[in-house]
Amino acid sequence: MKRLLLAALLVAPALASADEGMWTFNNFPKDRVEKAYGFKVTDAWLDNVQRSSVRLAQGCSASFVSERGLVMTNHHCAHSCIEQLSTKEKDFVKAGFLAKADADEVKCPELEVNQLIEITSVTARMKKATEGKSGRDFFVAQRGEQAAIEKECQTAETLRCEVVSLYRGGIYDLYKYQRYQDVRLVFAPEFAIAFFGGDPDNFMFPRYDLDVAFVRVYEGAKPAKLKNWLRWSAAGAKEGELTFVSGNPGGTNRKLTVAQLEYQRDTALPERLVAMAEMRGKLTEYAHRGEEQARHSNATLFYVENGLKALTGRLEALQDKPFFESKVKAEADFKAALARDPANAARYLPAFDEVAKAVTAQKKLRRQIEFKERLYAGELMGVARTLVRGATERQKPNPERLREYSDAALPQLTQGLFSPAPVYPEFEIFQLTHLFTKMREKLGADDPFVKKVLGKKSPAELAEELVKGTKLADVATRKKIWDGGAAALDEAAKADPMLAFARSIDEDGRAVRKVYEDSIQPVLVKNQELIAQAHFAVEGTSTYPDATFTPRLSYGSVQGYEENGKQVAPITTMGGAYERATGREPFALPKSWLDAKGKLDLKTPFNMATSNDIIGGNSGSPVVNAKGEVVGLVFDGNIQSLGGDYGFDPAVNRTVAVHSSALVEALAKIYGAQRVVDELKPGKK
Amino acid sequence: MKRLLLAALLVAPALASADEGMWTFNNFPKDRVEKAYGFKVTDAWLDNVQRSSVRLAQGCSASFVSERGLVMTNHHCAHSCIEQLSTKEKDFVKAGFLAKADADEVKCPELEVNQLIEITSVTARMKKATEGKSGRDFFVAQRGEQAAIEKECQTAETLRCEVVSLYRGGIYDLYKYQRYQDVRLVFAPEFAIAFFGGDPDNFMFPRYDLDVAFVRVYEGAKPAKLKNWLRWSAAGAKEGELTFVSGNPGGTNRKLTVAQLEYQRDTALPERLVAMAEMRGKLTEYAHRGEEQARHSNATLFYVENGLKALTGRLEALQDKPFFESKVKAEADFKAALARDPANAARYLPAFDEVAKAVTAQKKLRRQIEFKERLYAGELMGVARTLVRGATERQKPNPERLREYSDAALPQLTQGLFSPAPVYPEFEIFQLTHLFTKMREKLGADDPFVKKVLGKKSPAELAEELVKGTKLADVATRKKIWDGGAAALDEAAKADPMLAFARSIDEDGRAVRKVYEDSIQPVLVKNQELIAQAHFAVEGTSTYPDATFTPRLSYGSVQGYEENGKQVAPITTMGGAYERATGREPFALPKSWLDAKGKLDLKTPFNMATSNDIIGGNSGSPVVNAKGEVVGLVFDGNIQSLGGDYGFDPAVNRTVAVHSSALVEALAKIYGAQRVVDELKPGKK
Repeated sequence: MKRLLLAALLVAPALASADEGMWTFNNFPKDRVEKAYGFKVTDAWLDNVQRSSVRLAQGCSASFVSERGLVMTNHHCAHSCIEQLSTKEKDFVKAGFLAKADADEVKCPELEVNQLIEITSVTARMKKATEGKSGRDFFVAQRGEQAAIEKECQTAETLRCEVVSLYRGGIYDLYKYQRYQDVRLVFAPEFAIAFFGGDPDNFMFPRYDLDVAFVRVYEGAKPAKLKNWLRWSAAGAKEGELTFVSGNPGGTNRKLTVAQLEYQRDTALPERLVAMAEMRGKLTEYAHRGEEQARHSNATLFYVENGLKALTGRLEALQDKPFFESKVKAEADFKAALARDPANAARYLPAFDEVAKAVTAQKKLRRQIEFKERLYAGELMGVARTLVRGATERQKPNPERLREYSDAALPQLTQGLFSPAPVYPEFEIFQLTHLFTKMREKLGADDPFVKKVLGKKSPAELAEELVKGTKLADVATRKKIWDGGAAALDEAAKADPMLAFARSIDEDGRAVRKVYEDSIQPVLVKNQELIAQAHFAVEGTSTYPDATFTPRLSYGSVQGYEENGKQVAPITTMGGAYERATGREPFALPKSWLDAKGKLDLKTPFNMATSNDIIGGNSGSPVVNAKGEVVGLVFDGNIQSLGGDYGFDPAVNRTVAVHSSALVEALAKIYGAQRVVDELKPGKK
Repeated sequence: MKRLLLAALLVAPALASADEGMWTFNNFPKDRVEKAYGFKVTDAWLDNVQRSSVRLAQGCSASFVSERGLVMTNHHCAHSCIEQLSTKEKDFVKAGFLAKADADEVKCPELEVNQLIEITSVTARMKKATEGKSGRDFFVAQRGEQAAIEKECQTAETLRCEVVSLYRGGIYDLYKYQRYQDVRLVFAPEFAIAFFGGDPDNFMFPRYDLDVAFVRVYEGAKPAKLKNWLRWSAAGAKEGELTFVSGNPGGTNRKLTVAQLEYQRDTALPERLVAMAEMRGKLTEYAHRGEEQARHSNATLFYVENGLKALTGRLEALQDKPFFESKVKAEADFKAALARDPANAARYLPAFDEVAKAVTAQKKLRRQIEFKERLYAGELMGVARTLVRGATERQKPNPERLREYSDAALPQLTQGLFSPAPVYPEFEIFQLTHLFTKMREKLGADDPFVKKVLGKKSPAELAEELVKGTKLADVATRKKIWDGGAAALDEAAKADPMLAFARSIDEDGRAVRKVYEDSIQPVLVKNQELIAQAHFAVEGTSTYPDATFTPRLSYGSVQGYEENGKQVAPITTMGGAYERATGREPFALPKSWLDAKGKLDLKTPFNMATSNDIIGGNSGSPVVNAKGEVVGLVFDGNIQSLGGDYGFDPAVNRTVAVHSSALVEALAKIYGAQRVVDELKPGKK
């Protein structure tokens, strides 16, 4: 989803400054906030905000905003649900959605809400398991211990347990989440206003977006009865007011080594950008095939365009010479400091070279992994590959399985596998054709694997043959094969070309993954841990760990910034949207807005910028004030925030949120959703 | 055209080694060749090869290969001609073309052949004109003197005169060319074999392409009678044999400063790659609109894919750390050497900082230039903008005009302007929509220029309105407006939205160009000249100047190389093409080849690799042996040659050519083109 760009490698940051930091709830810098803003954060305050904040398993944040399980998140976080519920005849993405009563709320095929209910330290257990080990042994031991801990914890299907590495192995915590899998759509506005300004305005400010969706968690076919939820602020936030953002930042890379940053700057990011740009071009033109094609490819285009812009921002941050030089200098200084103590030097310094060597190996393996292990696109090929691999993996003891097939991971895996979301054969063929074409381009037409995959066929022919021949669009068929294990797979693969294909390349994927897991990943993990421990030894928990898509709290205030020599005001108004509208996509306001204009208070604050430190994954996070009330809904960062992956610049890095006042004004006066307003502001009928 | 990537900034290289160098004919290193290969190059030999080698003004090389004006070049160099002569009903790109007699030869709408007939030194004049000047004055003086010299030289429409800066201002030479504008298509094979392997095989070796086209130059409606042409080799080249490549390398950047290389690595190349990748995706999908759309967009896709691969190779060269560090070290060493002499230090050292400052300014102005001055795409918008600007520029004295409107430049400009090549409205709309979308994306929706251009319209609406409303597809209309000057333009713009639009943005383009020409270009030119002169002072003409799309000669031999630990043999056979064919594009052999298989000698050498130093622009160059006979036709470089923009690696940098034997074998036995064979090998009926 939007701006969820989970980074593979996470290490610990240096001392935080200004409003910087995505802090864990159990190590929140209350003193700093008090010093900067004169407000005393209490444990009770923290506890309620934490328990009221949730995560969408697919990669977003959200919050409980009523006693009856109402969940507020972004439209773009619920976009795939809204699209999956749509049909040719009823396009909720275009028209919006409002359930007039509980009975009208419709289940999202794939959404899952996770509420953190318990944190337990497992540092000692994890460290003991890998003691004295290296290479493949280290990797297997760590994976095994993690799977074991998670399995012990996960005593019910409704739980989700994850061992989280904080401060890059400085701390290992076991996070236990309550899973809500019955999540139903309550309200979504039209895409045109949720994403007003479209890609041109994405990551920009000033902004005029109603990027909101409300869903509801159900238990036993009834709205869940909650103990913790966030109350609604009567007035919303004003310029300069203290704001907290509670969410699940996906990943930051603020302490990568220079070798790793160079790899990102010179290889990983440019290659991904070029690949995504080509896909963007194809998707844009694919939408010309027809209205239906435009509809079913829309969410993918959105995902690609958003990622493209986000990665561009990250690349630009790394290409900024002074910034990169500061990273080089910081590492040199840190190494020099370590070198002064012979014990430190011996223990920690070699880790930098080891990481650099692993990065070189990673660079070489990159395309092999991309086109052998990750050779899937669209829905069906992923399903086929999961069915094939699942049949083998589930025969193994839990700790020996590939990570995504461990017992703790299976509930989410099967949720995706058995999703009733519609499949579009034309779009599947389009995506697989592209994938096979790229495979041939990047590995070369004479590569033995490429020859094995394509034979004499063209990419388009192969894609068509697989998609047209498979029965995997049918969820019952998938279920039957999954439940039937290896025997059922054998049988099904005889008649299903997609399954047969997935089978034929499974070993190729495993082989290249094994190289990575034997000789690269353990080196990276182990040596990054060493480097992080060197930092941790000095800094301890006086700073925050890199983001890990787990609950974090940041603080800041409603604040403008300077851009191209001009001051950007931090709050826009609903009236501004009308001024900006051109009547043409993506600057066309929906009819509901045009019709309601006369009823609205046009001075109502619409979007706002705050100085909170966030990153991809924070989409859908509530902005709360000192009273712990909702004053906004995070949906973006400004363009300057995109370098946030590598560092925080308090002068210009801004969170972008929908103001709470606009949410209520629009619900009540544009959408006739008084039912939702009453739930948010129960006293205010 | 393919691999013609004319670089904007050219500076002098260091001492050449091995087979390195694209040498001027009047400074060819005969002694080196003799030392390395035991062959004595004579002046007579050089003279004939030079006069037999020609340039295609659109960006390729070629050679005279018969007394009757027969010209050999690449299929991809004549591709746009072949496409322009095609119709829905007769697709010569797909089916190939063979004129059975002179009368069947068809005029190419835009091809122009240039034969260098005279070189005169104008160094003294050029230096004198700019003496003591800087900034805008320097620029205007230089441009003015250049225009004056060229105009004096250009005494007839059939001449083309160009002042060429060699060794970056070390030498200025006036090149006088004979222009052949009546160029007719004689033979082209099917695209499928000209570009067998398509984009996947582009820049690869081993290779199996018949990338050839024959055209003929006419004078007075008759085949031109030539004095110089290349004879055909009876046997063709063998492994290890000495080879020369005579052609017009477009541009190299082997002596850019580190600041300029960083700009290429971190800004210019990545941005262009992402832009081209998106266009590639769009074009690939555009071809799905229908067969006709696929046909008319095919050449553009080819151009984009080729550029994408070429620029990727260049970027990878710069991202190679040891290579880049060698550049950094070379500059540091050179500066240290200069610093040892106070006079040199004072004269030359500040130039490096000046260049760096200009690069910073250039970086800032980049998008402004791209989307204001270069706001055109497809055919019609370029025509409109040229008409608008031409009306104003032609009223000025020659030396004061923008460079492309100087008297010497006008013949080529009008050739393009009045080209009868067909225009495809749908494709025009497609390209302009993309351009306006990118403009809004890159400058921002709130940019005043963007608002002025789009108003309330969407990019697609504006594009459609302009294309559907314009009459500029009609060449007679263009001619009338051009010939009628400002008054005719005034009148036409009233009824033509494309002209009116081009007019409305002309000043915006001029303004940003003026900033560049006043404050960036002169600083770059002047200080690069200083740096180059520092090199030139030390090295003189003992080395070769960077490529300038002017005639050059390189030497080398038929040679394999090592890749991924394996030896790549330098010569493939025609039989290999049959082994490699899959029957599916781009690995499908045309029917003519399948039918003729039994008649062919399958051991005939097909393509070959040589160690000659070439670059984009060399496409279509003849490969000649020690006797000065044609042994091959350059059509590509291997992937390792793409770093050749910045340096030459003799171990792996290879020219890729069609072997002369395959050309004759295919003409005679596959295409029944005995007429052409007889002309190439007059004694061998």
